[in-house]
Amino acid sequence: MPPRPHHGLTTPRGFRAAATTCGIKPSGKADLTLIAADRPCAAAAVFTRSRLPGAPVIVGKRHLKDGAAQAVIVNSGIANDATGQQGVDNAIATARLVAHRLDIPPGAVVPSSTGLIGPQLPMDRIEAGVDALVPRLDRGPRADQDAARGIMTTDLVPKSAYAKLTISGQTVHLGGIAKGSGMIAPDMATMLVFLTTDAAIGPDLLRQALTGAVGASFNRISVDEHTSPSDTVLVLASGLAGHPPLRDRTADYRAFTDALTAMCQDLAYQIVKDGEGAERVFRVRVVGAKNEREADRIARPVINSPLVKTAVHGADPNWGRIVTAAANSGVPFNPDGLSLDISDPRGRLVRVFDHGAPVDHPKATLKKLDSIMKQPEVAFTLTFSRGDARVEWLGCDLSRQYITINADYTT
Amino acid sequence: MPPRPHHGLTTPRGFRAAATTCGIKPSGKADLTLIAADRPCAAAAVFTRSRLPGAPVIVGKRHLKDGAAQAVIVNSGIANDATGQQGVDNAIATARLVAHRLDIPPGAVVPSSTGLIGPQLPMDRIEAGVDALVPRLDRGPRADQDAARGIMTTDLVPKSAYAKLTISGQTVHLGGIAKGSGMIAPDMATMLVFLTTDAAIGPDLLRQALTGAVGASFNRISVDEHTSPSDTVLVLASGLAGHPPLRDRTADYRAFTDALTAMCQDLAYQIVKDGEGAERVFRVRVVGAKNEREADRIARPVINSPLVKTAVHGADPNWGRIVTAAANSGVPFNPDGLSLDISDPRGRLVRVFDHGAPVDHPKATLKKLDSIMKQPEVAFTLTFSRGDARVEWLGCDLSRQYITINADYTT
Repeated sequence: MPPRPHHGLTTPRGFRAAATTCGIKPSGKADLTLIAADRPCAAAAVFTRSRLPGAPVIVGKRHLKDGAAQAVIVNSGIANDATGQQGVDNAIATARLVAHRLDIPPGAVVPSSTGLIGPQLPMDRIEAGVDALVPRLDRGPRADQDAARGIMTTDLVPKSAYAKLTISGQTVHLGGIAKGSGMIAPDMATMLVFLTTDAAIGPDLLRQALTGAVGASFNRISVDEHTSPSDTVLVLASGLAGHPPLRDRTADYRAFTDALTAMCQDLAYQIVKDGEGAERVFRVRVVGAKNEREADRIARPVINSPLVKTAVHGADPNWGRIVTAAANSGVPFNPDGLSLDISDPRGRLVRVFDHGAPVDHPKATLKKLDSIMKQPEVAFTLTFSRGDARVEWLGCDLSRQYITINADYTT
Repeated sequence: MPPRPHHGLTTPRGFRAAATTCGIKPSGKADLTLIAADRPCAAAAVFTRSRLPGAPVIVGKRHLKDGAAQAVIVNSGIANDATGQQGVDNAIATARLVAHRLDIPPGAVVPSSTGLIGPQLPMDRIEAGVDALVPRLDRGPRADQDAARGIMTTDLVPKSAYAKLTISGQTVHLGGIAKGSGMIAPDMATMLVFLTTDAAIGPDLLRQALTGAVGASFNRISVDEHTSPSDTVLVLASGLAGHPPLRDRTADYRAFTDALTAMCQDLAYQIVKDGEGAERVFRVRVVGAKNEREADRIARPVINSPLVKTAVHGADPNWGRIVTAAANSGVPFNPDGLSLDISDPRGRLVRVFDHGAPVDHPKATLKKLDSIMKQPEVAFTLTFSRGDARVEWLGCDLSRQYITINADYTT
């Protein structure tokens, strides 16, 4: 990985952020984060599809119905999930506290939470925390870093990303932070992603861009296949970059969605790399599928297979596990049309399965294959000749450490 | 578990079995097993749905098209998977060798294999093995045990089952053996189940009975979600019990299918209990679903969730992982209609989630819950009020030992 950029969440014009310790986490680490815009922003979000969404998701959806927002308040340590009407009331009250201190409407504030399931939020501490946060709102690397740390739960490292592009001669910035390292428990997990941009774009188009970017990034990663009730990807667009508003089906809009997608993929990679107990990252590429839906169907059981994940952990070029996982996808492909390549980021590649049959390799090639499998990152490319669609999924290995983290954690 | 019965595979009238070491397994353990009937049997099988079926599956399907068979020859150590036309030829040749020695048509012999993917069968050893097996065909506990051991690969214990019932005043016996402890690798795994009965039943009705029994047993277990290219459940019915042939929609047929299903569930339990690295078994019951399909959709992500499996391993009553896994099933249920009970085989039960909300328990109840979770077997019952359908799935915990077995195994 390249070193994290010095630009991030508050680089786009019009955004400030701050984090503080209000006393939710027993560890005394930062647990309350505020992201605020100088003016109302176009806003869009993709939320968990769980049938048991947390209270902040319920309230967040409501507040985003008008396609606008100006602030996000995030606490870590308590998820405000499975907390009934009291939880919903607390999420609304949290938004009100922020709205009052920033002098904006409560509906312009999106509340978000991650942490333990069940407990109610300590509203007195949150109130004191919000009071402390507002005067400390700032921009720059320190504010970005604080915000990225403030939303962490079991993450080992803070996660942030940045991208820029030029539209009509103006520089447009995109920044973001993320947390998530597997659904450790519904208690302490969740993927939260907050993105900012100074692009000028309406809420409908922003939602369309975000949906596409999430589909090509966060929806194609897997740490342990377990969606949390709080998963949220939110983007705020301040419109301060000074270019004419983006319009659909233009080259500028495509450039913007490309940058947004790349930033989401960067954050998705960081989440997988920080997966619980993960030591290695692997990519599953499906090439030559009939369409993206079919390609996703084939990739999913491979990225989630405990046998593939343990093979990656053991650096074992066990191609049989990969092709049989794909063969279990339910996609009615002809095995004679399937080939499998194993490669590493240095560009070394070995074809292990060719049109339905194993490939006999000389010892030197098998040695190369062993070396590829020992890299910190490896890619499995399943090639079909059914069509032109291709997708790439990201996953991490399954280690004893994952078991330790998840079996020995007690509610 | 009760002690294994002294009756088994060869208790039904008309069946004999034997196993030998022909030299496929480097360990020198038994690796060739023959099950033979005294007369042609009605036969039915359920095979893997993998798009990459092994050669014996391809040949077995062909030989069972007429609904009849008289012998099964099973080798362990080499799966004869991904072996191309040569593999198919070898499977046919193996059936021919047995047919010749038993003086029956080759089409009456079903070949079956489990073990390493890729290598071809050593036909000379198999020929010598078949020659040695035929004179040793026998009935009784020793033959049953030999057969159950002969089909093992990574199984720690042999698996057999027995059931009987009375039809028209005649005792009808059912016996069976199974192997499988998770898809360790496509190389060394596979679930194979061979069942015998002396019931008088035609092949079409036998297939219908088997399909139902498999649906309620082997299709509702999960060790690691990975179907092998060789999975096979085969039943032979000799018809020697002396009752009038079974007819559809009669009480006798229902009694037969109940016995067949119970035996399959017994073998399925043994497979899960012997799951790789498994220390504990858990049941996921879905009650009050609209229909079985919906109930299966809800149960599947729960039984397969690595977070639920690690919680079971750690004896952690982490109900949040269970309800959120169910909430990820895609079934659009209302969370307010969902309750969750955790119970053990001794009948102790604690409701942890009641109509969409966590239940506050006094310390004594939490202590009982901890004690329930520490039993070698625990059940999670998800109750809805959407309809009358109920299903039960069986799974095992995810342990460090699973990682050790699967990451350190090298192809």
